[in-house]
Amino acid sequence: MPQIKTGIINVTGYIGAELARLLCQHPQVELVTVTGRSAAGQKLGDVFPNFAGTNYIIKAELDSEIDIAFSAMPHKSNVDVVPSLLKQGIRVVDASADFRLKDAGEYSKWYGFTHPSPDLLREAVFGLPELHQSEIASASLVANPGCYSTGALLALAPIVKEGLIYPDIVVDSKSGVSGAGRTLSLTTHYSEANEDICAYSLEGHRHLPEIEQELKALNPSFSPSITFVPHLVPMTRGILSTCYARLRDDKLLKDAKAEKKLSQIYREFYKHAPFVQITIKPPHTKHVCGTNFCLVYPSVDSKTDRLIVISCLDNLVKGGAGQAVQNMNLMFNLPETTGLEALAIYP
Amino acid sequence: MPQIKTGIINVTGYIGAELARLLCQHPQVELVTVTGRSAAGQKLGDVFPNFAGTNYIIKAELDSEIDIAFSAMPHKSNVDVVPSLLKQGIRVVDASADFRLKDAGEYSKWYGFTHPSPDLLREAVFGLPELHQSEIASASLVANPGCYSTGALLALAPIVKEGLIYPDIVVDSKSGVSGAGRTLSLTTHYSEANEDICAYSLEGHRHLPEIEQELKALNPSFSPSITFVPHLVPMTRGILSTCYARLRDDKLLKDAKAEKKLSQIYREFYKHAPFVQITIKPPHTKHVCGTNFCLVYPSVDSKTDRLIVISCLDNLVKGGAGQAVQNMNLMFNLPETTGLEALAIYP
Amino acid sequence: MPQIKTGIINVTGYIGAELARLLCQHPQVELVTVTGRSAAGQKLGDVFPNFAGTNYIIKAELDSEIDIAFSAMPHKSNVDVVPSLLKQGIRVVDASADFRLKDAGEYSKWYGFTHPSPDLLREAVFGLPELHQSEIASASLVANPGCYSTGALLALAPIVKEGLIYPDIVVDSKSGVSGAGRTLSLTTHYSEANEDICAYSLEGHRHLPEIEQELKALNPSFSPSITFVPHLVPMTRGILSTCYARLRDDKLLKDAKAEKKLSQIYREFYKHAPFVQITIKPPHTKHVCGTNFCLVYPSVDSKTDRLIVISCLDNLVKGGAGQAVQNMNLMFNLPETTGLEALAIYP
Amino acid sequence: MPQIKTGIINVTGYIGAELARLLCQHPQVELVTVTGRSAAGQKLGDVFPNFAGTNYIIKAELDSEIDIAFSAMPHKSNVDVVPSLLKQGIRVVDASADFRLKDAGEYSKWYGFTHPSPDLLREAVFGLPELHQSEIASASLVANPGCYSTGALLALAPIVKEGLIYPDIVVDSKSGVSGAGRTLSLTTHYSEANEDICAYSLEGHRHLPEIEQELKALNPSFSPSITFVPHLVPMTRGILSTCYARLRDDKLLKDAKAEKKLSQIYREFYKHAPFVQITIKPPHTKHVCGTNFCLVYPSVDSKTDRLIVISCLDNLVKGGAGQAVQNMNLMFNLPETTGLEALAIYP
Repeated sequence: MPQIKTGIINVTGYIGAELARLLCQHPQVELVTVTGRSAAGQKLGDVFPNFAGTNYIIKAELDSEIDIAFSAMPHKSNVDVVPSLLKQGIRVVDASADFRLKDAGEYSKWYGFTHPSPDLLREAVFGLPELHQSEIASASLVANPGCYSTGALLALAPIVKEGLIYPDIVVDSKSGVSGAGRTLSLTTHYSEANEDICAYSLEGHRHLPEIEQELKALNPSFSPSITFVPHLVPMTRGILSTCYARLRDDKLLKDAKAEKKLSQIYREFYKHAPFVQITIKPPHTKHVCGTNFCLVYPSVDSKTDRLIVISCLDNLVKGGAGQAVQNMNLMFNLPETTGLEALAIYP
Repeated sequence: MPQIKTGIINVTGYIGAELARLLCQHPQVELVTVTGRSAAGQKLGDVFPNFAGTNYIIKAELDSEIDIAFSAMPHKSNVDVVPSLLKQGIRVVDASADFRLKDAGEYSKWYGFTHPSPDLLREAVFGLPELHQSEIASASLVANPGCYSTGALLALAPIVKEGLIYPDIVVDSKSGVSGAGRTLSLTTHYSEANEDICAYSLEGHRHLPEIEQELKALNPSFSPSITFVPHLVPMTRGILSTCYARLRDDKLLKDAKAEKKLSQIYREFYKHAPFVQITIKPPHTKHVCGTNFCLVYPSVDSKTDRLIVISCLDNLVKGGAGQAVQNMNLMFNLPETTGLEALAIYP
Repeated sequence: MPQIKTGIINVTGYIGAELARLLCQHPQVELVTVTGRSAAGQKLGDVFPNFAGTNYIIKAELDSEIDIAFSAMPHKSNVDVVPSLLKQGIRVVDASADFRLKDAGEYSKWYGFTHPSPDLLREAVFGLPELHQSEIASASLVANPGCYSTGALLALAPIVKEGLIYPDIVVDSKSGVSGAGRTLSLTTHYSEANEDICAYSLEGHRHLPEIEQELKALNPSFSPSITFVPHLVPMTRGILSTCYARLRDDKLLKDAKAEKKLSQIYREFYKHAPFVQITIKPPHTKHVCGTNFCLVYPSVDSKTDRLIVISCLDNLVKGGAGQAVQNMNLMFNLPETTGLEALAIYP
Repeated sequence: MPQIKTGIINVTGYIGAELARLLCQHPQVELVTVTGRSAAGQKLGDVFPNFAGTNYIIKAELDSEIDIAFSAMPHKSNVDVVPSLLKQGIRVVDASADFRLKDAGEYSKWYGFTHPSPDLLREAVFGLPELHQSEIASASLVANPGCYSTGALLALAPIVKEGLIYPDIVVDSKSGVSGAGRTLSLTTHYSEANEDICAYSLEGHRHLPEIEQELKALNPSFSPSITFVPHLVPMTRGILSTCYARLRDDKLLKDAKAEKKLSQIYREFYKHAPFVQITIKPPHTKHVCGTNFCLVYPSVDSKTDRLIVISCLDNLVKGGAGQAVQNMNLMFNLPETTGLEALAIYP
């Protein structure tokens, strides 16, 4: 089988670099071009030292002879670029939010711009393989989910689908600092972020509409009312999301075996999802460092009839670059796990 | 005014050492004895290097010529020791949970032992000065609150008291590792705890009954249904608690100025509380490192009519030793802030 | 005694903020003005959250009715400002390097500018109180030493003074990230600095000429040949310097009690230095966090006849703001330790 | 080609677990057994969560049908076990120090026991592939070097071999905390190790005799006098060693191109060493996290005619498990890099 020819647009951020790391080690992929406007002409190994032993040169423009492009540009930058790639017959996985939301109106509200391609929003597939496997396989354009969205959706999907909870949901997420990217800011200055934890975006984080859209799609009779609060944690990688919702299911309520049954529901839901592991103890972000796994721990707080579902993942892998590669595998009929089998680095 | 003669029982844990740090620098205190069974005979500076320039020797037994004893022994160890101190006329601030709960039955349930002194439970005052200032002043025995309890109660007290929320409450807390003490465990082994976040005690954390007891006492018509989930964060000091509850107040609902009004309610509630600061931005644990402050940020998620109240504090100071000193100040008619005015070390 | 009226020029960096923290809590000081061009008009508590409970406003210009100014401006900015302060009768402690070096030619070589005031260089006193106590007391202008210089000089001064070592010296220093200041850079970006250690400035670090100048002054017959390599360590505060030199003293060589005698030499040298503690075990930076102490551990590698002397300090306190306050205490005939007695925060 | 059948003795420490991670992903290896006395019967994934998706069970005893055993037992435990494995025809890579030193007398001195198999010491090959490639290929018993030794030797070997330096050498090493293993201690307790740096083993670290032995072997006329001081750094993985020695070579002294020539000498020396990269800037431990690379940066301090050579590596990979696998590759005629090509996780 011939190698899939791939290119990365804007390799100079952490998601771009992680895409390069995964693609250059992928057994079925040829990484043809990596681009980055400001760094064009430099060796990739001079920008990201883990590539020191490689020969990639950062280019200004993508090679057109590729099968698939991964875009790691900032939000809003992709709405013009992606249509022209598609016209050239290049399939696209876009890591930004530019094609995640079906309702064009949401872009005005959450991102402050009028989306120029509502048609393409309908055509784009939300790239969470655990929910949209077959559509992704045939998609031209896959909108890779946000890192927080991935964790929240994988934690909540089974119970929303099954109608087991009331719509009042709290998602309390904790992320490592790499989620804030490589752009400098006082918030991510070492001496400020170290030995500190804080919440942010209480006025509304942009991953919320994605989460709502996908939960509604799973269960059209479900109108979730979600409060989502992200936090910044002094570590480099990892997102842990603790999700709270009240049980509405009569069969689980007051059932001494509720937790086992719940676990069974999750295992069933994810039986074809190789990267979702249902755990029997609260999971740790360290358990998935560098991997594409998402660990999900469903539990019951019997004193309050509340479900507590915890998920964790590596924000740059399953929360970004790894999921993009997983999507590519589906788009090219490869086993979903190809190039994504590495075990976590521990400790 | 003569110095208050104080002693610390079990100085060898982090709370004990922090008590020693605060008391030995307190302008109205003479630190007469520090005890520690296993370390008796050693210099305090050999056990805790920040005392290297001091001359304290760890003793096996407390000097009886003291006005007040601070006990930093583990849970269950104090139920026998405290009554005998009280009989000698020594007032006591107990840092453990042994006298926090009014209902003796809760000790069987949460701590696994039958409490021998239900009378003393009634007499003991729950040592959260912001709720029990005058009772503390005249108390012989003050039960210093748990670190998580302090953060949760200071975040929730005003809105529970005012009846502004429905009883469904989620408290999602994040603590630095020093909260787990100085006893060795794999969980607190550097290579395991570093670069990791996890939740724990999902089956029920022992600080929950304290939180429930005190909220009910604030508003007898309020029957809280609280889910409390603590998390371990890779930093040494600090607790951040993010509290979620639905607004029930008609005046705040749909009010564009709800957040301002809410902030006003908190300021009013804490107008005589020198260590509670109401912030206008989400607070950071780093802002209170080494201090007795608790920062509280009340906010409204208008999309869901939910309140999000965030508190943060230093778990070893306001969450432990500092609060104990604050209680002592009240018990001896000193200004509440005496010996506790140091600014945070930043960064 | 009236309070000393003080001002801080450029309070917006970490040294400036640490000066404010120490001065506003100093029992003999009134902190009259703090300035900061870019932040003029803002509350100090909005720039540094540990000042949230205070009322300082950042001004554009210094109040002229002060007794002493602390300048925390970047290098080269002080050469014009300081002379005009001195003319107004304001004494100055300058935290920059602008008046540390006696030889004006060194500024061309190490700092890339021609120093305009060679006279003032002669007049300025190098502000290491352990070496220049009496000159500091009467100085108008004190040049506060660099953070690395303080650690290296306190480690080496006794043995250089006593002529116990050969001139070949290696100083290997490890600093927390706050030493790099609050200005943003990729080097101090959390995700880059975390979980990493590196050496830097191998081509020559600017603190080297200070170290050489002061060692030569201690022992005119000593021509040190120093290799100094600083390293960046993933922690916020602290510098540990490991200094290596060969023993030349016949009395110590082959003496089983060499280490004890050495320790005695250090204790004698520093017998009037309240902030230098000679330790009997290798010291830790954590032992001095937030304090003005410098711990010094002299030891002998008997296999190689080499001395290993380790010092550690808090780079923002004894390595910066604390030392500046110590200098002020001397200049105003206060006990050297006034306002600097706080114990380290531990852990 | 048939898979190499391998076993790991004592998989329950960090080196053992890292061996399992590398071997189970190695394309030419079948990992037949992993043993661990205390954990026998447990799933490997229950002891090390990064193995959660695998089916390895920890056994009490090694399967005898293996080609090669990796021993990750503590020092002194291997002297009895290894001979019996060799007798069964099983080749051994021993991660401990038990067969590293040629002179049996050194074991009494440094390890406090009399070595029972001096013959085997002569037969064993010191497993640093960059120095002993061909002997390793034919060895039955390979003694895998210490983590510090690997870094120091790779930094110093070329210049010692070429006779470019005087014998006075300082090696100042900085290690992440995982180097201290998984056994609990106050030193590696999170709240003690975090935000701290210290030196240790100043009385002599056990890796020193290995370093001396191998440097002497490289250049019999060279009698090194090495002071080696290890430090503990608050990060999980990585060792950075800064090595200092005076230049004695007339051709390099006073040569403006000395640094380039030096770099050329290193490149030549390591031209067949795929895991040693000579860098042109000071290297960072983060650049090699999770990989088998050792970065070496040779530089000249022209002011003092001193060489400063910095090396860095991941202490659990090139400093332990990765190097063991590299040795196995050589022993079984595989390309040296097989199974060790993964790029570093960054950031």
